[in-house]
Amino acid sequence: MAESIETLDPGDWTEYARIAHEAVDRVIARTAALRHRAVWQPMPEAGRAALHQPLPRSPTPLSLVVDEAWDTILAYPMGNTHPRFWMWYMGASNLTGALADFLAAADGSNLGGGNHAAVEVERQVIVWLKDMMGFPASASGTLTSGGSVANLIGLAVARNHMAGGDIRQDGVAAVSRPMRIYASDQVHGCHQKAVELLGLGNGALCRVPSGADCRIDLAALEKAIGADRAEGFQPICIIGNAGTVNTGAIDDLAGLAELCRTEGLWFHIDGCIGALARLCQDRPAALDAIELADSLALDPHKGLHAPFDVGCVLVRDARLHLQSFALHSEYLDPAARGIAAGGWLFDYGLQTSRGFRALKVWMTLKEHGADRFGRILSRNIAQSKRLAARVDAEPRLKRLAPVELDIVCFRYEHEGIEPTALAELNSEVMMQLQEQGIAAFSDTTVHDEYGLRAAICNHRTTDADLDMAIDALIAKADALARVGAAARA
Amino acid sequence: MAESIETLDPGDWTEYARIAHEAVDRVIARTAALRHRAVWQPMPEAGRAALHQPLPRSPTPLSLVVDEAWDTILAYPMGNTHPRFWMWYMGASNLTGALADFLAAADGSNLGGGNHAAVEVERQVIVWLKDMMGFPASASGTLTSGGSVANLIGLAVARNHMAGGDIRQDGVAAVSRPMRIYASDQVHGCHQKAVELLGLGNGALCRVPSGADCRIDLAALEKAIGADRAEGFQPICIIGNAGTVNTGAIDDLAGLAELCRTEGLWFHIDGCIGALARLCQDRPAALDAIELADSLALDPHKGLHAPFDVGCVLVRDARLHLQSFALHSEYLDPAARGIAAGGWLFDYGLQTSRGFRALKVWMTLKEHGADRFGRILSRNIAQSKRLAARVDAEPRLKRLAPVELDIVCFRYEHEGIEPTALAELNSEVMMQLQEQGIAAFSDTTVHDEYGLRAAICNHRTTDADLDMAIDALIAKADALARVGAAARA
Ligand SMILES: Cc1ncc(COP(=O)(O)O)c(C=O)c1O
Ligand SMILES: Cc1ncc(COP(=O)(O)O)c(C=O)c1O
Repeated sequence: MAESIETLDPGDWTEYARIAHEAVDRVIARTAALRHRAVWQPMPEAGRAALHQPLPRSPTPLSLVVDEAWDTILAYPMGNTHPRFWMWYMGASNLTGALADFLAAADGSNLGGGNHAAVEVERQVIVWLKDMMGFPASASGTLTSGGSVANLIGLAVARNHMAGGDIRQDGVAAVSRPMRIYASDQVHGCHQKAVELLGLGNGALCRVPSGADCRIDLAALEKAIGADRAEGFQPICIIGNAGTVNTGAIDDLAGLAELCRTEGLWFHIDGCIGALARLCQDRPAALDAIELADSLALDPHKGLHAPFDVGCVLVRDARLHLQSFALHSEYLDPAARGIAAGGWLFDYGLQTSRGFRALKVWMTLKEHGADRFGRILSRNIAQSKRLAARVDAEPRLKRLAPVELDIVCFRYEHEGIEPTALAELNSEVMMQLQEQGIAAFSDTTVHDEYGLRAAICNHRTTDADLDMAIDALIAKADALARVGAAARA
Repeated sequence: MAESIETLDPGDWTEYARIAHEAVDRVIARTAALRHRAVWQPMPEAGRAALHQPLPRSPTPLSLVVDEAWDTILAYPMGNTHPRFWMWYMGASNLTGALADFLAAADGSNLGGGNHAAVEVERQVIVWLKDMMGFPASASGTLTSGGSVANLIGLAVARNHMAGGDIRQDGVAAVSRPMRIYASDQVHGCHQKAVELLGLGNGALCRVPSGADCRIDLAALEKAIGADRAEGFQPICIIGNAGTVNTGAIDDLAGLAELCRTEGLWFHIDGCIGALARLCQDRPAALDAIELADSLALDPHKGLHAPFDVGCVLVRDARLHLQSFALHSEYLDPAARGIAAGGWLFDYGLQTSRGFRALKVWMTLKEHGADRFGRILSRNIAQSKRLAARVDAEPRLKRLAPVELDIVCFRYEHEGIEPTALAELNSEVMMQLQEQGIAAFSDTTVHDEYGLRAAICNHRTTDADLDMAIDALIAKADALARVGAAARA
């Protein structure tokens, strides 16, 4: 018999079972009734204040802790699981993924590496993602905390491989000509963070103008590269957008791949928004060229609706990937037998200890099959085109960008209201729709035009949801425009 | 009524409930019986092979997916939840944390920021961690994917603040004198990854010799800084170890803080192993000086046994933290109302989308109270000292390093066996203990002496577990030594 010691295990297993079963039932009831709830509601100030507690020193029964979490925290989510949340491009989560996160946490394994099943599952998930992306079996990859770190890893490999010399040892300052990376002016902010972190500086990220279609201007890009070379810079990498965050634009990836080939540059693709649309039968043809990337970031917590957080980076040349991130330390010598055999997954990224993110991707892909994800993404794209058509047909709505994937940018317009007032009106409508729990749009600026943005990456959204939201938007905007007109009169 | 569309929601909610309840019951049964299982067992080759499947295109009923996960994956964990796993310094997970991960995933909120309860919970957890660490209320902090990224963030803030000039814009190459960071030769490998990633180069991480106690040699450090200054380098930062990965040594943190003050350097502390021992009533006095750090990495997935992954970085000067990581983009303008109000947590680190890691820390701290974590850590430290005493008392065991926290390095010795054979013997015993599921030790080298390592960060370990494992270790080693002696005879 074991000595009885104080642990973190449940004091009463039956009670833990009761609480966990009840939590499951609560989650099911709330999820099943999701569309009858408000998209979002603000935390009551009293609830927010009640959360501010001093560090708890002594215990509280688990049932009370879960009740408090349920009533004061989980009742006020961001709203992205709701069918009418289109505010940012993110997944809507799913209950199989949540069950997987429970099982992964109970399993407790560290995916830093070693000889156990969780490591094999991550390897398998990477094989599947390579397959989806048309990457060769010899490519490498790793799951990350999200797309930002996936992009960072891709750019780090690019930097280290292209710099020449031993940049890992000697650093960026030892590279004779300053390095330059190119992307369109629509590139996601995480790339700025990446080049800053990598010691290249934000100035090394050359933002090439995008056209009216929000795609990179290839001629301008070619010119920028030439001019930089002439000035003594060392171009090392082009970042292609497979779905920009602002409008979902897909750069001419085949053109970029060709340019990288002729210029001898690394081709990184940020596919956080668009790469998974390769699963769609009617996918945009532009996504075919994803296969040509040297490195690719994609985001299962977006298009596969995995609960946060899980991203992925793939690198065509596994050797270069390892050469950027593998270390060896005494206490981590590879072993031929036992728990430490089987290699290290931390050789492919920034983390040492790593969670079992792979299980939620594995379980949902098994349960639903990849084709269902393709159909859902196809539906989201079709809904976006349908919304675009409605915007085009409504005299008071104006579209701000082409719709290639599942993002629609538009705004309400009204005769006689000048731009500033119009921006205020659109913003006010957006706020009211959020505050009244009707629908969540965001606002943005596309080529200096202010407007609203619907990112329809949501497996629960129906056509009727969009119709209802746009009806409400127009009605509110009309009312505000009337009030404004009355005030001016 | 909603249109009926294909979603990722359960087709049959009752069936999902049944499966999730069954998963809970299976996890409970397995966890309750944990100590009667093998610490570890290798995956059967057939099971490993069975995992290699082509990308699933069509659906499989969830119950079959969970059954497959349970039988072929979750039956072969790393083993770190087991009471006799001391192989690496990691947490043993816990079921409240697992329940929290389920609830967080079902909630689905993105902790990148915005106006919802999950964001408030992370803020609250940071307040608690600052309190535990003696950091001022004005300090900032963020949860990360682990200690490696926490250290990276701390060093990035150090680099950006100390470089002088606009390093975010201009990069490392624009800094006139090459920067230098100092740590002992016992520093964790993630710091090498960090300086490489930051573009400083591994050469910029000066490893200062440690003494026999594995603590940094302060005099050698001071000399190195002076010599570097004389050679034109720019010293920017000292990394202090609050618990080295190899032996758990705690550097003279007060001495390092003083040196940083007089030399004008940033003081970063890697507290991934030792910082949480501040919760112990009888904590090592050396940990008091953690309060003096400019930035501090600590690791709830170690000392708080939160399921992987969750680390934390604290930065004394919140403004410098933000100045290193905040960006502003059109579609993310701060809002006065609605879902986007309330600020962005991604302004403090590398991730944009972020999981709800905070809930597992919040729930377990509420359930158990911080004092219980302190008592468990105290017990692990006491067990380490008890093990050290036994090693010292056993003629055939030799201790390789002082024991300050919960790591013990030692080896089996036997008259007449030379060093190489002795290393092989120790390694063989370690392997047999793992393969037979008895106990998991790792091997390492301390100041060129090969040996075994017990990292006793485990809330389930009893004194009897350690006695039994050491008994088995000695018996096996004696047997191997006899065989060896017979072979030599
Ligand atoms: C195009 C693009 N790239 C990168 C990212 C960053 O991904 P994550 O939020 O997963 O870090 C995003 C996220 O919004 C994105 O839209
Ligand atoms: C001293 C020390 N620092 C940093 C780390 C890295 O932490 P993590 O594994 O959480 O990334 C470790 C992990 O083993 C460690 O022991």
